[in-house]
Amino acid sequence: MPADNNRSRNNYSGKRNARTVKNNSAKSFKNNFKPYKKNGGDKHAAKRQAKPSVKVAFLGGLNEIGKNITLFECEGDIVLLDCGMAFPDGDMLGVDLVIPDFTYIEQNIDRVRGLVVTHGHEDHIGGIPFLLAKMNIPIYGTPLTIGLLGNKLKEHSLFNSAKLNVVNAGGRVKLGCFEAEFIHVNHSIPGSCAIAFHTPAGVIVHSGDFKIDCTPFVGEMIDLHAFAKLGHEGVLAFLCESTNANRPGYTATEQSVSRSLDAIFNEAEHNRIIIATFASNVNRVQQIIECAVKYKRKVALSGRSMVNYMSVARDLGCLSIPQNVLIDIDMLDKYRPEEIVLITTGSQGEPMSALSRMAFSDHRKVMVGEGDLIIISANPIPGNEKSVGNVVDELLKRGCKVIYESMYDVHVSGHACQEELKILQKLISPKYFIPVHGEQKHLRKNAELALMLGMDKSNIYIGDIGSQIEINEDYMKELAPVPAGKVFVDGLGVGDVGSIVLRDRKHLAQDGLIIIVASLDVYDGHVISGPDIVSRGFVYVRENEALLDEIRSASLRILEDCADRNIHEWGTIKNRIKDEISKMIGHKTGRSPMILPILQEV
Amino acid sequence: MPADNNRSRNNYSGKRNARTVKNNSAKSFKNNFKPYKKNGGDKHAAKRQAKPSVKVAFLGGLNEIGKNITLFECEGDIVLLDCGMAFPDGDMLGVDLVIPDFTYIEQNIDRVRGLVVTHGHEDHIGGIPFLLAKMNIPIYGTPLTIGLLGNKLKEHSLFNSAKLNVVNAGGRVKLGCFEAEFIHVNHSIPGSCAIAFHTPAGVIVHSGDFKIDCTPFVGEMIDLHAFAKLGHEGVLAFLCESTNANRPGYTATEQSVSRSLDAIFNEAEHNRIIIATFASNVNRVQQIIECAVKYKRKVALSGRSMVNYMSVARDLGCLSIPQNVLIDIDMLDKYRPEEIVLITTGSQGEPMSALSRMAFSDHRKVMVGEGDLIIISANPIPGNEKSVGNVVDELLKRGCKVIYESMYDVHVSGHACQEELKILQKLISPKYFIPVHGEQKHLRKNAELALMLGMDKSNIYIGDIGSQIEINEDYMKELAPVPAGKVFVDGLGVGDVGSIVLRDRKHLAQDGLIIIVASLDVYDGHVISGPDIVSRGFVYVRENEALLDEIRSASLRILEDCADRNIHEWGTIKNRIKDEISKMIGHKTGRSPMILPILQEV
Repeated sequence: MPADNNRSRNNYSGKRNARTVKNNSAKSFKNNFKPYKKNGGDKHAAKRQAKPSVKVAFLGGLNEIGKNITLFECEGDIVLLDCGMAFPDGDMLGVDLVIPDFTYIEQNIDRVRGLVVTHGHEDHIGGIPFLLAKMNIPIYGTPLTIGLLGNKLKEHSLFNSAKLNVVNAGGRVKLGCFEAEFIHVNHSIPGSCAIAFHTPAGVIVHSGDFKIDCTPFVGEMIDLHAFAKLGHEGVLAFLCESTNANRPGYTATEQSVSRSLDAIFNEAEHNRIIIATFASNVNRVQQIIECAVKYKRKVALSGRSMVNYMSVARDLGCLSIPQNVLIDIDMLDKYRPEEIVLITTGSQGEPMSALSRMAFSDHRKVMVGEGDLIIISANPIPGNEKSVGNVVDELLKRGCKVIYESMYDVHVSGHACQEELKILQKLISPKYFIPVHGEQKHLRKNAELALMLGMDKSNIYIGDIGSQIEINEDYMKELAPVPAGKVFVDGLGVGDVGSIVLRDRKHLAQDGLIIIVASLDVYDGHVISGPDIVSRGFVYVRENEALLDEIRSASLRILEDCADRNIHEWGTIKNRIKDEISKMIGHKTGRSPMILPILQEV
Repeated sequence: MPADNNRSRNNYSGKRNARTVKNNSAKSFKNNFKPYKKNGGDKHAAKRQAKPSVKVAFLGGLNEIGKNITLFECEGDIVLLDCGMAFPDGDMLGVDLVIPDFTYIEQNIDRVRGLVVTHGHEDHIGGIPFLLAKMNIPIYGTPLTIGLLGNKLKEHSLFNSAKLNVVNAGGRVKLGCFEAEFIHVNHSIPGSCAIAFHTPAGVIVHSGDFKIDCTPFVGEMIDLHAFAKLGHEGVLAFLCESTNANRPGYTATEQSVSRSLDAIFNEAEHNRIIIATFASNVNRVQQIIECAVKYKRKVALSGRSMVNYMSVARDLGCLSIPQNVLIDIDMLDKYRPEEIVLITTGSQGEPMSALSRMAFSDHRKVMVGEGDLIIISANPIPGNEKSVGNVVDELLKRGCKVIYESMYDVHVSGHACQEELKILQKLISPKYFIPVHGEQKHLRKNAELALMLGMDKSNIYIGDIGSQIEINEDYMKELAPVPAGKVFVDGLGVGDVGSIVLRDRKHLAQDGLIIIVASLDVYDGHVISGPDIVSRGFVYVRENEALLDEIRSASLRILEDCADRNIHEWGTIKNRIKDEISKMIGHKTGRSPMILPILQEV
């Protein structure tokens, strides 16, 4: 590949050419997008080290969806970008949510100057209460982001102590040697920004979550001029989100959703309309409200998070609702169905959400059936397809009309597709390109786009959580990894559920358990009481008493045999019970429940 | 809606008009596709009853994916169509597979004349071993279907006793008053048929699984002439599969996959090629083999079911492999990577499959990495998106090139899309239309297609499992439902895991359990030994000893208090422990593990 040609194509500014020193290491990288690691013997190393550099540590958001958090370090100052949560995978049984491991931040807390937040989605702010519970770091974000975060911190009783700072798009904030510039972008929540960090080592841009919508329904188009200016002046590195990197073309404008909604409202003369969307999608709710006003319908909100988000958004002027449009959900029966639009949570089929409860006739205030037109204005997040499908099926069974998936363009993504990713990358024209936010398939595809645009493979870096790199004008190199990982939140417990607990839950979930309890004579080890057999999640006990009797007598036999042979070491006895009973049950049932022998000495 | 006009459009044969007696009940059905139920007072009922009628009982495959089984009854004779299995939903913890409830068949076994099988997929034959274990019903199917079924019955030691009968497409078999005509269709496994039941009440057609492929890669196009002939002569009812009813347009021809594979093979000069597809997709494997031959590659098979299916298919002449093309997987290292095509199972990301094991470096014989081109020639079945995505990510991390999802048209569905469904329905021109095979959203959409084609709403029936209808020339009416449901297979146990066991497994999976064991004095109820606390899947014990100590002392307090108050009823004591310890743990941890107090008397 003629890397030098590509390089010069990539840089339209003369000034940038000063930076395009090539480290000739392209060959050693092959396919794996890992930068060349300098060894100690490099005689130019000392000179290069003299130039200021930025270290970037990826604490979350790589090879996973959600839990976005990145740490930047320059001349001893540290700045964090976002601190999100992730939803548990199917094998993280009983886990409520997943947050980043904050160890590396704790280790360096005296140098942390602040946390910059790109926007108010859970995968960017959901970890903050857990972070602030440990370290009270000052936080910077746009008004809605800070408003939503404040609400969340109140629930955790952290609001009063938190140091929340509002920065408007276009604004800058100084954090040690960093200056963070907030740049307006389009996304599915107002107040979304990319961040350009101006540092002594150069400018580093992080896209946050973005798309390019030239005709958004509310607010301005993404500030492409700001990106163009940065690109013109020279950008060291661009960290770019990768969510939709596998999707060709463009994300359609929000206006297309408005047109679809209008057509649906126009036709639904005799129907009550119920629309499910993300509670955080303030602009979508605004679209729905304007459509409702046009078609002379009242609007009610359903779902705790929907009510909360809209209340914050309205207080901050991000949502405008004309007088006498919003009604309380308790007032629904005062109106005819065709006078109502109900906006609800539950677009992901979440079992406890308002829409699910309507579908399964479990909602206290809303009964659905024939005459209801239900619109799911969202796409299922990967992994939720089945639960969304179940909700749709239940609604259909009740006679509702349901508009879902890609029917009628009632939803557009909040993320950039390939053409948009390419445009932003070319405007920014970075020296180094680092795809972030996504699984391996998304990161790889985003990296491939950079290759297609002419970037040298050695200037692209695909990391993992815990990866740390150092970049400056001359090189990008991988450093030793830093502590990073997944911390599980289960109820009030943070980090007290780990792999052993999960392995046990999985085992219990598969085949249940059998408890074998016996009291043994403290002197000779013979059985005084029991063994009693208790099982849960194994078989239906009433219909399988013979099997449980067999387990009881086999256990008794083992215990007595151990006593006869003078085996009194409980570990040995328990292991014999486990092994033999396991084998017996496996042979008879083909299952392997957890076997728990419990012995007591009397 | 001008129903009569539509009706006459729908019938191109004069003969058919004799049947179009209208029961004028359209108004009472509204949206719900339920036929009019006759009440006892209908004075024409007796006369109508005189005409022969067919009863259809839906024992599986409605409002669910898989587990297809339908029961037809006419003049005392019963014929079954298919008997499949389904995969468990996420909330059926530990369940291996789901089969139909055979109660209604058992109740009427003396009248069952046979089981007709449309094709050899698991969702159509997977329940048969469990059926035959109870009732030895004669079975009829095409050679490959019977071959695959025979293999399966051998594993269950049922092969020798089974009454397996081979019928070729185009053939007919007499089963009591039924004559079952096998009609060749296109699908993703050879030997697939629709069935036309010729009965005294008229002809009933069941589509089986089908698509219309005018240029299949192997074999003939679907026998549209047979369907046209039936339609011309008059068809009473058409039961039509609905899997792809939500997809507009046509399913692309298998030839398009061949073209894509050819292009990929042509470019992959320096790569080993690994292709994952369904083991049952014999024609896809044939395509891959022909491509391998063209590009002078050897073919190895990986995965037990892949090897099994191909061996049966080859024995029956459904798969032709030239000499010296197939090599054993142990011989892989005798060839250069670019001389190899490895065909493997695991296209659904199944954790134990060959492809998953390759991805996670757990395959004994195949190591993947740079230089491997991996093609997933299948779409994820709903619910499997996440596991397929994980496998793709792991392969990418190892440096493999991966072609997945809709990239490069490496897969086409085996099911008919809307245009094909409409064509078959119009060719058959049934009086009654009954969508089958699918969730509510699929059934509804297929019913909507019939409405669009001019069928009267009252002639369309959407049932549920357990529904039973009676149809003849004059009417279609719903009868009392019959026993039907989901029977869980877990290990060797069939039906011994029910809702209580599953509820316990779910509880255990969420928050684990705490066992509180104590030995009590047989005379005064005071604690002699314990209480000992054992927990699994709750918290990491070593880091939470204080909490467990608190549970222990609280339990001791309760037990001693009960003894002091002369409360010796164990149920009462256990409930008090459960309640108080639950409350304590809930307050301290926000979790609700299962609490199991076990008391022994000494």
